[in-house]
Amino acid sequence: MLMTTLCYIERDGRVLMLHRTKKKHDINQGKWIGVGGKFEARESPEECLVREVREETGLTLTRWRFRGFLTFLQDDYPTEFICLYTADGFEGALQPCDEGELAWIRKEDIPGLSLWPGDRVFLRLLAQDRPFFSMKLLYHGDDLAECLVDGQPLEE
Amino acid sequence: MLMTTLCYIERDGRVLMLHRTKKKHDINQGKWIGVGGKFEARESPEECLVREVREETGLTLTRWRFRGFLTFLQDDYPTEFICLYTADGFEGALQPCDEGELAWIRKEDIPGLSLWPGDRVFLRLLAQDRPFFSMKLLYHGDDLAECLVDGQPLEE
Repeated sequence: MLMTTLCYIERDGRVLMLHRTKKKHDINQGKWIGVGGKFEARESPEECLVREVREETGLTLTRWRFRGFLTFLQDDYPTEFICLYTADGFEGALQPCDEGELAWIRKEDIPGLSLWPGDRVFLRLLAQDRPFFSMKLLYHGDDLAECLVDGQPLEE
Repeated sequence: MLMTTLCYIERDGRVLMLHRTKKKHDINQGKWIGVGGKFEARESPEECLVREVREETGLTLTRWRFRGFLTFLQDDYPTEFICLYTADGFEGALQPCDEGELAWIRKEDIPGLSLWPGDRVFLRLLAQDRPFFSMKLLYHGDDLAECLVDGQPLEE
């Protein structure tokens, strides 16, 4: 079992995305994701969020929203619970990230990136400003086998 | 690190409370709390919620809301992350619980019960219908040393 945070930082119609190209044996290899990472001992979600964003981007968040809770299951990997955030306030200057290339991507260009299929779903829910949701994502390899929102299949 | 669910079921102005009197070495010994329990392998929060409520009460939830996420720290115990729910729809009949005495308590009588001090805080936020919140609770023994809501001290 693993607890992580994941954050999509917005500015002027763009979202800070991380192209995961640098880590070896990375489950996210080649994918574009938000920034974030694993909880350290005795951290709350927002403490992990602020620390991880600072470590990965150099930015210090000043305003964020806790938007959802993801249960990410993939084959034999341990379950990953992801606290999902958006943020629109920060201080500081962007710095290079050890884990990949950071880029401010226009919102309309995000669907054209290589993304986890489940990320496409929750990014749409975030764009729709859906109230806090719990999403269960079951993958076989890169294929999304099951996607439940608050325990129910999502109506398209 | 431990993941659990905690649920306050409401009906006709009363809340189903569990008086923890039956388990040995129970961190909650003597306290009144909601129902819920530990995640099993590969469960999502709502799957754990529905299973635990059924096991502890005999009731099958049909409607609930994910209201908050609690980070519970106490001295040297492992961090407990608690998915906090309220529910107002269920089927079935109440059955006795192995972990304590179940009772439907009038809302106005709840403050008179033996509760964790942090529970008094989040029960008030729930009663105020506060949008989804993250609450960090740091205890020394039974004393609440720190209480942060979305990273900030709560304004009284």
